[in-house]
Amino acid sequence: MKNIKLTLSYAGTNYHGFQRQKNAITIQEKVEQALQTVFGESIPLTAAGRTDAGVHAVGQVVNFKVATSIPINRIPYALNANLPHDIVVTAAEFVPDDFHARYCAKSKVYRYTIDNAEHPRVFTRHYALHIGYPLNLTLMQQAAATLVGKHNFRSFMASGSSVQTTERHLLRLDVQKQQQYIEITVEADGFLYNMIRIITGTLIEVGRGKRPPDLTPVLNERSRAAAGWTAPPHGLVMLEVKY
Amino acid sequence: MKNIKLTLSYAGTNYHGFQRQKNAITIQEKVEQALQTVFGESIPLTAAGRTDAGVHAVGQVVNFKVATSIPINRIPYALNANLPHDIVVTAAEFVPDDFHARYCAKSKVYRYTIDNAEHPRVFTRHYALHIGYPLNLTLMQQAAATLVGKHNFRSFMASGSSVQTTERHLLRLDVQKQQQYIEITVEADGFLYNMIRIITGTLIEVGRGKRPPDLTPVLNERSRAAAGWTAPPHGLVMLEVKY
Repeated sequence: MKNIKLTLSYAGTNYHGFQRQKNAITIQEKVEQALQTVFGESIPLTAAGRTDAGVHAVGQVVNFKVATSIPINRIPYALNANLPHDIVVTAAEFVPDDFHARYCAKSKVYRYTIDNAEHPRVFTRHYALHIGYPLNLTLMQQAAATLVGKHNFRSFMASGSSVQTTERHLLRLDVQKQQQYIEITVEADGFLYNMIRIITGTLIEVGRGKRPPDLTPVLNERSRAAAGWTAPPHGLVMLEVKY
Repeated sequence: MKNIKLTLSYAGTNYHGFQRQKNAITIQEKVEQALQTVFGESIPLTAAGRTDAGVHAVGQVVNFKVATSIPINRIPYALNANLPHDIVVTAAEFVPDDFHARYCAKSKVYRYTIDNAEHPRVFTRHYALHIGYPLNLTLMQQAAATLVGKHNFRSFMASGSSVQTTERHLLRLDVQKQQQYIEITVEADGFLYNMIRIITGTLIEVGRGKRPPDLTPVLNERSRAAAGWTAPPHGLVMLEVKY
């Protein structure tokens, strides 16, 4: 048996998220179907993280164990030939037997993209949230800086979620302008449910001048009601998983 | 009556090209329907150029005449509210009465994008042609240089087309690498039918080492058979019309 790590990209637009569900088409189901076709057996998949419905990935990581003689560099081609065009395996490598895509992950990097032109760019309409009014980049960057570090992020978790601890280490929260886009890049040891989308919605409210840029009081409230809007899923991309 | 110029962007994926047809959905039909809704009358549209089925635009230019009191900067919003999400008006301006989107155009700029990574990027799958094998950029640039200038481009016109003259002035044909993409940017006073897609297909054959980079003999043949493959429409975008 070999332990194989795949790097996976997908457009989440047409899927009900990563994780397999009954009566809904998911990324996991499509990839497991391709594994079955290529390797001739049912193979369960372990993923670094579940992405929600409508969320995309360029660097999702999964692993699985199989006995195969297919050369490792041919595996992406074999799988891609059996996957829809909106799911693409970009790399495959052998990893040690104890590698686990989720448990071994040290941090994950996501990016939320805002199209801040007056009128949206059609080509990125599924990959960026269009905000037609001006956003103050400096205020958003100031607000982002108040969230970086080890904090209790309970205010930035969807209400009703259950989790052992709501403390997370936010390693990076960059807000950059690239042409007409504002890119929010966030890295952490883990994320609470909807955390990035709530952070993004809150930063948008700051950028619009609707709330002060110091978000320390929001953290201290430890209540979902203290934070801002949940930005929609289609602007979010899972960029990278670090091991 | 005011003469109004619109700048139009669209993803051509779901349309049978720009020009109105019976029994097929086109960009022109959608825009004329929006004009009818906004201005309350049937208004014919003049476009700088027709784009084929599957071809996109960020800078298509159209004009039309109407008596209206809607402020010019509100017209894009009014039209966009009545257009599908893959067609967006990005600008509107009053122009002199004799402005004609097609006849007044001095040159047009198009871009053809090739995704030259081993495995395609999912987000641009509708906007870039994926070529997984390596292409030699230097050879493609050498070949491009042999086409720039005033030439008879009959070899680069779809066979069966009828046109008064096959001479065109190619002002620019740049081949640049941007990350994993090869961008072919072309400007001319006018284009023959399928000209950019045949030029692109021929440059790809040069980049793959399948034909020599000097394309002067191909021009001199004045026969479609002398040039290369017609690249598919989805990599092509109408970038700008110059007046």
